[in-house]
Amino acid sequence: MTSLPSILGGLDPTSDRAVFRQIADQLREAIDRGRFKEGDKLPSEAELVEHYGVSRMTVRNSFSILQGEGLVHAEHGKGVFVRPRPPVRRLASDRFARRHREQGKSAFIVEADAASSQPKVDSLEVKEEKASQDISNRLGDSVRRVLARRRRYLLDGRPVEFATSYLPLDIARGTQIAEPNPGPGGIYARLEELGHQLDHFEEEIRARMPSPSEVKTLQLAAGVPVIHLIRTAFDTAGRAVEVCDTVMAADAYVLSYQLPAT
Amino acid sequence: MTSLPSILGGLDPTSDRAVFRQIADQLREAIDRGRFKEGDKLPSEAELVEHYGVSRMTVRNSFSILQGEGLVHAEHGKGVFVRPRPPVRRLASDRFARRHREQGKSAFIVEADAASSQPKVDSLEVKEEKASQDISNRLGDSVRRVLARRRRYLLDGRPVEFATSYLPLDIARGTQIAEPNPGPGGIYARLEELGHQLDHFEEEIRARMPSPSEVKTLQLAAGVPVIHLIRTAFDTAGRAVEVCDTVMAADAYVLSYQLPAT
Repeated sequence: MTSLPSILGGLDPTSDRAVFRQIADQLREAIDRGRFKEGDKLPSEAELVEHYGVSRMTVRNSFSILQGEGLVHAEHGKGVFVRPRPPVRRLASDRFARRHREQGKSAFIVEADAASSQPKVDSLEVKEEKASQDISNRLGDSVRRVLARRRRYLLDGRPVEFATSYLPLDIARGTQIAEPNPGPGGIYARLEELGHQLDHFEEEIRARMPSPSEVKTLQLAAGVPVIHLIRTAFDTAGRAVEVCDTVMAADAYVLSYQLPAT
Repeated sequence: MTSLPSILGGLDPTSDRAVFRQIADQLREAIDRGRFKEGDKLPSEAELVEHYGVSRMTVRNSFSILQGEGLVHAEHGKGVFVRPRPPVRRLASDRFARRHREQGKSAFIVEADAASSQPKVDSLEVKEEKASQDISNRLGDSVRRVLARRRRYLLDGRPVEFATSYLPLDIARGTQIAEPNPGPGGIYARLEELGHQLDHFEEEIRARMPSPSEVKTLQLAAGVPVIHLIRTAFDTAGRAVEVCDTVMAADAYVLSYQLPAT
């Protein structure tokens, strides 16, 4: 390893920026400049104590800042490492185009193909339940009970999102949509076979920090937010035929959209 | 205030969940159930030490967790408060429609109107500069230098996003686009007057934790991620005529999009 003094500078005693922040700034800059690369171990607590002449607690506080920003992760007993950036999935603005359904592919499979990744779906639960107020509002006030399909998506063994689809019972009950495996092309293909020709989708996007159960389900590193996406599918009669509530690991996705200029 | 035992339960000594996490779980649940509302002060360290029979350090660790999730914020010497959720701006999928430009309104003003908010734009900088590799890739490889327009947007006095527009010099130099005030309808209206009829926009969305300078510029509370949005405007000749790089406070926005089904 290159010697620390050549990578990290000294502290500025005249700065009104706290020492632990100055150290975090220098480590961050070294990561940004590629002096420490993905997967590299940062200098140890002892090395930084020695280099900066500060206490272990100060160094730990600096590491905490970088962890909170999602730049590094600590491995117990091993040290602090630059967090590898996972391969990012680009969701194209045509990802729900009919030509994909006609090939018997769901949107998730289309994405996985594009990323040359191995897709997997687990934690499947399909059941009838009471609609929440929000789901009722989206599917239409008369919809009180829904078919809920819950699943978690993994790419190359890594959980990347979990999603729940809600469908009105008058559409979905007793159809293949209520089966664990909805068949080729997924539930959108089945909806069209049932006479609900799809017209368009509306998506609402928010970002926030995950809840503890989301951290667990998506195996999120510290400092990684989630993207919360709520999609509503409309048929050509203008009816909302499905709402899909999705929570995605923000470090695993780039979402693309087209907006009209007219 | 209702007594603590009626709001918060006791600890589970048989649980393998660490005590500070159990306390954070109980406080989170009380916030979710509305027992502590936006702006409410949480019980003090001393009260929680008394209630749970734990050390101050344990209580501080519990508060840290909730701060990291963006649920609470600490006010020095005053206590820990449930973070008020700022009013959220919904960005509609038709926000760049020509009818808005024809009314002499920029997209930001349209949004502010929809939210009945007072809009303000500051930190204006307009200059010619070298294009980064990423901006060159988006505007076309022959574009080496660009006009950059940097500004910060505030709603009701609160910073909500900052954005930089990059335009090729052969389009923007010497036009009103290079002036601090680009005039009614904003730069998209000027581009169309210059003969670049807009066809569509492409947007790329990511979410991540902010850098320290982003925290400062957007006055972000702990545990609030940013949405990073990169928009490219295309004219009817298929040319990329502008790239806008925007960083938004994630707690202030919901983005809406329409996706085609065909």
